Amino acid sequence: MTYWHEKEFEVRDYECDMADGVNNAIYMNYFEHARHCMLKEAGIDFAELARRKVGLVVKRIEVDFIRSLVSGDQFVIKTSISRISRLRFEFTQEIQKNPEGTIVARAKLVGVPINAAGKPFMEPELEDKVNRLLNKYNSDQTSNDLAHN
Amino acid sequence: MTYWHEKEFEVRDYECDMADGVNNAIYMNYFEHARHCMLKEAGIDFAELARRKVGLVVKRIEVDFIRSLVSGDQFVIKTSISRISRLRFEFTQEIQKNPEGTIVARAKLVGVPINAAGKPFMEPELEDKVNRLLNKYNSDQTSNDLAHN
Amino acid sequence: MTYWHEKEFEVRDYECDMADGVNNAIYMNYFEHARHCMLKEAGIDFAELARRKVGLVVKRIEVDFIRSLVSGDQFVIKTSISRISRLRFEFTQEIQKNPEGTIVARAKLVGVPINAAGKPFMEPELEDKVNRLLNKYNSDQTSNDLAHN
Amino acid sequence: MTYWHEKEFEVRDYECDMADGVNNAIYMNYFEHARHCMLKEAGIDFAELARRKVGLVVKRIEVDFIRSLVSGDQFVIKTSISRISRLRFEFTQEIQKNPEGTIVARAKLVGVPINAAGKPFMEPELEDKVNRLLNKYNSDQTSNDLAHN
Repeated sequence: MTYWHEKEFEVRDYECDMADGVNNAIYMNYFEHARHCMLKEAGIDFAELARRKVGLVVKRIEVDFIRSLVSGDQFVIKTSISRISRLRFEFTQEIQKNPEGTIVARAKLVGVPINAAGKPFMEPELEDKVNRLLNKYNSDQTSNDLAHN
Repeated sequence: MTYWHEKEFEVRDYECDMADGVNNAIYMNYFEHARHCMLKEAGIDFAELARRKVGLVVKRIEVDFIRSLVSGDQFVIKTSISRISRLRFEFTQEIQKNPEGTIVARAKLVGVPINAAGKPFMEPELEDKVNRLLNKYNSDQTSNDLAHN
Repeated sequence: MTYWHEKEFEVRDYECDMADGVNNAIYMNYFEHARHCMLKEAGIDFAELARRKVGLVVKRIEVDFIRSLVSGDQFVIKTSISRISRLRFEFTQEIQKNPEGTIVARAKLVGVPINAAGKPFMEPELEDKVNRLLNKYNSDQTSNDLAHN
Repeated sequence: MTYWHEKEFEVRDYECDMADGVNNAIYMNYFEHARHCMLKEAGIDFAELARRKVGLVVKRIEVDFIRSLVSGDQFVIKTSISRISRLRFEFTQEIQKNPEGTIVARAKLVGVPINAAGKPFMEPELEDKVNRLLNKYNSDQTSNDLAHN
C-alpha cells in the first residue's frame, strides 16, 4: 500500500490562461512545490542545498492531464517516492480536486542528487533523510516505464 | 526524414531559480510558445480559438532533461507533429543550445482539439490547417510509447 | 481607522530567483491573488466577469520593496480599498512577514471596472458588491499621490 | 534629450490571463529583462553578480498601464537610467507597441546595488560600468516623484 504526502492548494487567477483553465506549465510549479514540502518534512531544504551548490535535479517528467483545474478550484497533491537505483528516485504525484476527489492529473518524475561539480552524488546526511522519506512515503508501484531510463 | 519547425529563444534571468538554472516549469512555457508559433504559421491562432471556446488541449507530456539552461543561453526549439489517431496528435520537441547544438531537453506531447462542450472534435477548417502542418513538419518517428495512451 | 482584508501565503521555491529572494514580479502575483480573494468575499468573481468580458483593470501600481522574502517565509497580505472617483478605486496593500510582523512591501494600485467595449463602466450589481467592500475594508488614508492620475 | 536602450519582445500566449490580455505581473518580467539586457551591454551580468552575492535591488517601482498587450503583439521596451543619489539609480521604461508606436505602459524604478552583507554598496568596477550606461542612456527627465524616496 502507498502512503502519500499530501499538500493542499487553491487555484489562483493569475495561473489561468486565455483558455480559462490553469496553464499546463503551472502544474509543474504545483508538483514542484508539493515535492519540496515533502522533502522539507524530512529536513531536506532545497534552498539551503542550492546555496551549497548541491542540486536535486529532475531528469525526466511524465504528466497525464485528465481534467482541467479552473479558477477557484481547491485541490490536494499526493506525492510518494521510491528508489529506482542507487542515485535515482522516482516521485509519483497525483492531483485530486476537492471535495469530490476526482483525479485531475498524474505525474511521474525521476530525480537525481548532484554535487557542486554537477556529478550524481549523495551526501550521507542527505541519504539518511531520504531514507526517512522512503520509509514513510514509499510507493510500492513498480515503475517499468521509468526504471530503464 | 523529419523536417522541423524552429524557433529561437534566449534565457531570461527571471526564468532561473535558486539553483541558477532555468526552472523546470519554464521549459513547458518554452515548448508551448514554440508549438503555438508553429501552429500560427499554418493560421491556427490559439487566442482566436480560445475566444470561440475551441481548445487545443495537452493530454500528456514527457520531458527528458539532459542539460541545464542558464542565464544568457541562446537556444532553438525544434518541433514536429504527427497524427497518432483521428483526433490525437503527437508533438516531438527538442531544445538545442546555440551555437554548439548540444541537446538540452527532449519532449513528446499528445494534443487533442476539443469543442466548446469539451468534447474531442475538429472543425473541417482546423483540419485543413493541421494537414498543412502534418505535410510540412511531420516526424516519421514511430511513437510506441505514446500511441497507446 | 483602517480595517484590512487578510490573506495568508507562504513562499514557494519556484518563486525565488538567482539572487535567492522572491523575484519582484512575483509580488504582483501575490498582491493580485490577495485582491481577488477580497473581491470574492463580496461575490465579485474575476473569472466569471472575464467570461462576460467585464474587466477589472489595473491602471497604476506603486510598490515599495522594503525587505526580501526568501524560501520558506510565511506572510500575510493586508488589503484595503477606497474610492477616489466615480469609477476609480484605490487598493492599499501591505505584506507582513509572519510571525514577526515586519513590513516587507507596500503597494498602492488604481483599479477601474470596464465593460465589454473596454470603456470605464460599472454595472449596478457590481457597484452594490463594491460598496459592501468599501464599507468593510475602506482605508481612511488620503492618497494624494494617486488621486490626481 | 534622452537616448534609450531598446529591446524587442513579442507576447507569448502563456503570458495572457483569463481576461485575454497580458497579466500585469508579466510586465514586471518584461521590464526586468529589458533592464538586464541594458546592463549586460555594459558588462554588468546579473547572474554573475548574484553568484558573488552582489545584488541589484529594486527598491520601488511605479507603473502606469495605458493599453493592454494581447496575444501576438510585438513591442519594444525603451529604457534609460539616471543617478538620483550616490547609490540610487532611477530607471525610466516605456513599452511601445509595434509597428504603431502607441504607448502601452510606462514605468519608473529605483534600484540600489548591495554587497554580500545586504548593505548599499558599489564596487569601483561596477561603478565604472554604470557610468558608461549613464553616459549612454541617461534620461534628462527630472524625477521629483521618486527622488525623495
